[in-house]
Amino acid sequence: MQIREIGEQGLLKILQGFCPRDLIGDDGAVLPWSYSLENGQNDRQSLVVTTDLLVEGVHFSDRTTSPADAGWRAVVANLSDLAAMGAQAVGITVGLGLRGDTTVSWLEELYQGITACLQQTPIVGGDVVNSPINTIAITAFGRVHPQQVIKRSAAQIGDAIVVTGSHGKSKAGLELLLHPEEYGLTSLSNYGQLEEGEILTADRREIIQAHQRPQPRLDVLPYLTSFDRIAGMDSSDGLADAICQICRASGVGARIDRAALTIPEVLTQMVSAKTALDWVLYGGEDFELVLCLPWVQAASLVQKLGSEAAIIGTIASDPAILLLSEREGNFTLNLEQGFQHF
Amino acid sequence: MQIREIGEQGLLKILQGFCPRDLIGDDGAVLPWSYSLENGQNDRQSLVVTTDLLVEGVHFSDRTTSPADAGWRAVVANLSDLAAMGAQAVGITVGLGLRGDTTVSWLEELYQGITACLQQTPIVGGDVVNSPINTIAITAFGRVHPQQVIKRSAAQIGDAIVVTGSHGKSKAGLELLLHPEEYGLTSLSNYGQLEEGEILTADRREIIQAHQRPQPRLDVLPYLTSFDRIAGMDSSDGLADAICQICRASGVGARIDRAALTIPEVLTQMVSAKTALDWVLYGGEDFELVLCLPWVQAASLVQKLGSEAAIIGTIASDPAILLLSEREGNFTLNLEQGFQHF
Repeated sequence: MQIREIGEQGLLKILQGFCPRDLIGDDGAVLPWSYSLENGQNDRQSLVVTTDLLVEGVHFSDRTTSPADAGWRAVVANLSDLAAMGAQAVGITVGLGLRGDTTVSWLEELYQGITACLQQTPIVGGDVVNSPINTIAITAFGRVHPQQVIKRSAAQIGDAIVVTGSHGKSKAGLELLLHPEEYGLTSLSNYGQLEEGEILTADRREIIQAHQRPQPRLDVLPYLTSFDRIAGMDSSDGLADAICQICRASGVGARIDRAALTIPEVLTQMVSAKTALDWVLYGGEDFELVLCLPWVQAASLVQKLGSEAAIIGTIASDPAILLLSEREGNFTLNLEQGFQHF
Repeated sequence: MQIREIGEQGLLKILQGFCPRDLIGDDGAVLPWSYSLENGQNDRQSLVVTTDLLVEGVHFSDRTTSPADAGWRAVVANLSDLAAMGAQAVGITVGLGLRGDTTVSWLEELYQGITACLQQTPIVGGDVVNSPINTIAITAFGRVHPQQVIKRSAAQIGDAIVVTGSHGKSKAGLELLLHPEEYGLTSLSNYGQLEEGEILTADRREIIQAHQRPQPRLDVLPYLTSFDRIAGMDSSDGLADAICQICRASGVGARIDRAALTIPEVLTQMVSAKTALDWVLYGGEDFELVLCLPWVQAASLVQKLGSEAAIIGTIASDPAILLLSEREGNFTLNLEQGFQHF
């Protein structure tokens, strides 16, 4: 049997059989030793590791992604996984598989994108090998106080479900880059640049930016330190996927309030309301955090995070994951519609 | 300009420009915070990380490598890098890029090879994505007391140069698998299995084993704890490459005694003495350690390690790296003849 026949969840099930049960199932692994900074013996924090592969033609292409954007996105996926664990970044390793005909300038721009997204976090090592297809493998290391680890499995019945920002913009930006003619634009040249003379509206620039330069939500972490228990993960594979994964890991269900979901106006200008909602729920790559915590704390958190953060629903005992809408009726969210790697 | 035009060393120079100078240049990075085991506050050790990519058709192929052997070799490259830093293994992450038509049994056998080589070391996380070419990206974590880190740059004039075992067998095993007819064997079928009825001599079985299931020399580390300073690295890219890299990093030269180099007898049965010596010096993938330390300590170490370990030369102030031979005359070893990734 081939792996594409068993699907991503079937595949993960096989691979997880080879891993210790307590170390897997989250965006990163919390390793069971704590370390302390050289100059602060009491600052004991756990080590968090996470790893991601990006493959040319699968995760990035010259059509929509400059080498610098590819580097940025390889890093953001990893930093977002750290944020999803509640961990600050401390370093990454970069493994590269490169075609021999890759240009030096492509490689330099890739690294410029990597370091731009990293800001002060250092690249601490790497490997570079020949490959028929350009591949970027990044492993990121982070640190988190053991009491402040965010886990998918920690959601409790009655928790509020918080999103740290709006969803759907990254998918909208990708669609605009892939099918510019459908949205009244002259074809975009390589790397998502517009033809000369073409003018983009501010909100279209924003969704292209959301796709090409998404931000890891490490900035959210300082607001979380006062809370005792937070469940959650990032929404890199889609908002609905994140909600479903949290519910499955926690053995609970969820009720999402359709009216509480922000649908960015630029989406409804591009496509039907139904498609816009699909992009919000299943688009993926927004790299926001989806967090579950008691209502009073959730309300305080949303207030601190500002305009695009919102409480979008509540954790329920009934295992169904429902989107409740007065106008459109209720429907069930499912894992299968999220971004499938296979 | 394309990266294949600038060569591996040129490529590394560019990439190292993006990394902190004090963290690179060895088989792994020693991160500047130390961690302590939960139950032993005084057991402060540094964290070492290393990463390696293996690509189908470049580093392994169905012709000479079963999926289990590919998994083994992906792990051994990383564990050997940890051993080369003086670090014991504590965990790895596994990133996989897989063709959709990869079979489930191939994947399971790959993981069986990975876990067989790991022994008790856990897989603590991973990622699996679609890719046109099967790719294995492993990052390994280790721990080492800060005083016992083995660095390439620590060799001193007058040091003895120790190898922990013989070289050339892995290359000989690969050649036997690739060109069985040249060595009087019926063609080997896929995965390096012999045709039915064919009988391999013990030493030919040994070199195939050396290629398919090399051992990381983590077993050497307990013998090193009593020494104050050890320079070194592993010989994964060849014995000559290791000597040259250590000399370059330490700003010294070396004199290798041709008579002290073991040339396994099975090599000279297969090829000319000259080619056998080439395999010993440049063959690569033997995953032994090449260590530089004072002579008295070196002699004691070699005695403890047993038959295949040897002192093969000495570190000199003159930067030339010479192989001294009474019979064949002296010649210079160079970096370019080692395994080039590009």
